[in-house]
Amino acid sequence: MDFKEKELPTQELWVEENFKGISKQSYRIKETLFSGKSEFQTVDVVDSIGHGKILLNDGLMMLSERDEFIYHDMISHLPLYTHPNPKNVLVIGGGDGGTAREVLRHPGVDVCTMVEIDEMVVEACRKHIPQTSEVFKHPKFKLVIDDAVKFVAQTQEKFDVILVDSTDPIGPAQPLFGPEFYQNVYNCLTDDGIVVSQGESPFYQAETQKSLLKVLGQFFSVLGLYNFSNLTYPGGLWSFTFASKKYHPVRDFQNERYEKDSLTFNYYNKGLHKACFSLPEFMNRNLGPFFKGL
Amino acid sequence: MDFKEKELPTQELWVEENFKGISKQSYRIKETLFSGKSEFQTVDVVDSIGHGKILLNDGLMMLSERDEFIYHDMISHLPLYTHPNPKNVLVIGGGDGGTAREVLRHPGVDVCTMVEIDEMVVEACRKHIPQTSEVFKHPKFKLVIDDAVKFVAQTQEKFDVILVDSTDPIGPAQPLFGPEFYQNVYNCLTDDGIVVSQGESPFYQAETQKSLLKVLGQFFSVLGLYNFSNLTYPGGLWSFTFASKKYHPVRDFQNERYEKDSLTFNYYNKGLHKACFSLPEFMNRNLGPFFKGL
Repeated sequence: MDFKEKELPTQELWVEENFKGISKQSYRIKETLFSGKSEFQTVDVVDSIGHGKILLNDGLMMLSERDEFIYHDMISHLPLYTHPNPKNVLVIGGGDGGTAREVLRHPGVDVCTMVEIDEMVVEACRKHIPQTSEVFKHPKFKLVIDDAVKFVAQTQEKFDVILVDSTDPIGPAQPLFGPEFYQNVYNCLTDDGIVVSQGESPFYQAETQKSLLKVLGQFFSVLGLYNFSNLTYPGGLWSFTFASKKYHPVRDFQNERYEKDSLTFNYYNKGLHKACFSLPEFMNRNLGPFFKGL
Repeated sequence: MDFKEKELPTQELWVEENFKGISKQSYRIKETLFSGKSEFQTVDVVDSIGHGKILLNDGLMMLSERDEFIYHDMISHLPLYTHPNPKNVLVIGGGDGGTAREVLRHPGVDVCTMVEIDEMVVEACRKHIPQTSEVFKHPKFKLVIDDAVKFVAQTQEKFDVILVDSTDPIGPAQPLFGPEFYQNVYNCLTDDGIVVSQGESPFYQAETQKSLLKVLGQFFSVLGLYNFSNLTYPGGLWSFTFASKKYHPVRDFQNERYEKDSLTFNYYNKGLHKACFSLPEFMNRNLGPFFKGL
């Protein structure tokens, strides 16, 4: 996490995210490294001053090199240290590679398949953000460029853990918040499978959170939501949903494997594995009624 | 995707906080309600679209009506439900009144004294932000307009809990981060007293956090730091230090009184009282060596 400031350009350049017309976050940048428009969205990679390289889809911050470890730690290690023996892992979206990178740090995982709809994201990251895309060369990594909605409807594979690393429910990611998709996710999970999904902002998107929990509640017997603190998402606080056919995220924590692996983390750890399920009271009131088996 | 050079809003009005020249947060506003320059700092109150009224000192966000409950819950209820019988509470800074408001929801507290250096903050909030300043009328509330550094050096009173609700260590708040001030804070605490202090951003101000912990460690036998997620501070994640002569913040949680009081909170609760001490791994590595008795 060493971001040394080089000589600044004389003209100040900023990349700006306008959030619902009521707030904006801006990051000072040195230059634009990539700017394209795919079939699905605009894709930009910029080099910032103070936050490393930044990926934006449709003008929304997807990741910065400075804080991507937080999101990627929390989407992956929590379910992988809940499931007792995750071998076959599916990442949906996550075209930058950061989620797959963390999945493949677990020595017991045999294959991590990433299904990304937008090849432009993959290629832009491959070229400009090796910090996350280095995983594309990993021998256990399998890339599928496809619509994940179609993929989960058609695959004959069974996965132990599925990670839905999606953007907001607008544009290409919209179906990833609906019941048809999650019926198929349920079907291609093993009998003790777990799915963790990007769960939006507790401050600004409580309605989307409720709606996603309602959908998941139609299929899964264990259902909850956990928080993490991102640096570059609007409002900082962000969440993942946790839905499982069998395992409880806290009671089934795999302490022995966690200690044996002894991985080095920057955000996730044993304490946070449990603590992240302690939610602020406004969230308990709003979302608590949708939780199951926690 | 907009890559804007520095430009001023034309029709829309925004208030903007520039953070160290590398990031900015902006909030859309309807109008400026108050704008003044005191002996110590500039003081502005604006009415926003989406975040209620906002107080800024020297252009830095102090609070928004939308999220002030988070900071004020977490600075006050955590120490007040750790100390078994807090009667006399001192708030240093906190001129908006929000911290004192939460302190005085505890039925056992006899007096809450607030020592604020800048009368302009108090008067601006009294007039424009009743949501926090309503407490100024409370019969157990005592206002002292004075330099807290002088106050803690001179007072003969003893306090059970002291809450240092300060701005960043620049301008008037700078001495509130030093050893002379904390020697006096220690002296005017009872033998089982607790002090909680605004602990800055884990992402951006780790050095200030270390330096504050080092200072506190000279005096207190129990020392730690806990996190909360603010909406309107840069990076979201923020912290308080916890320093105590006797009580452990988790082991001495006052469950019985907590249940009996049955206060309604929007952020704080029993689960978070403990969970907020579970820190991300990068913080454990940086700050863990400074903790005591946790």
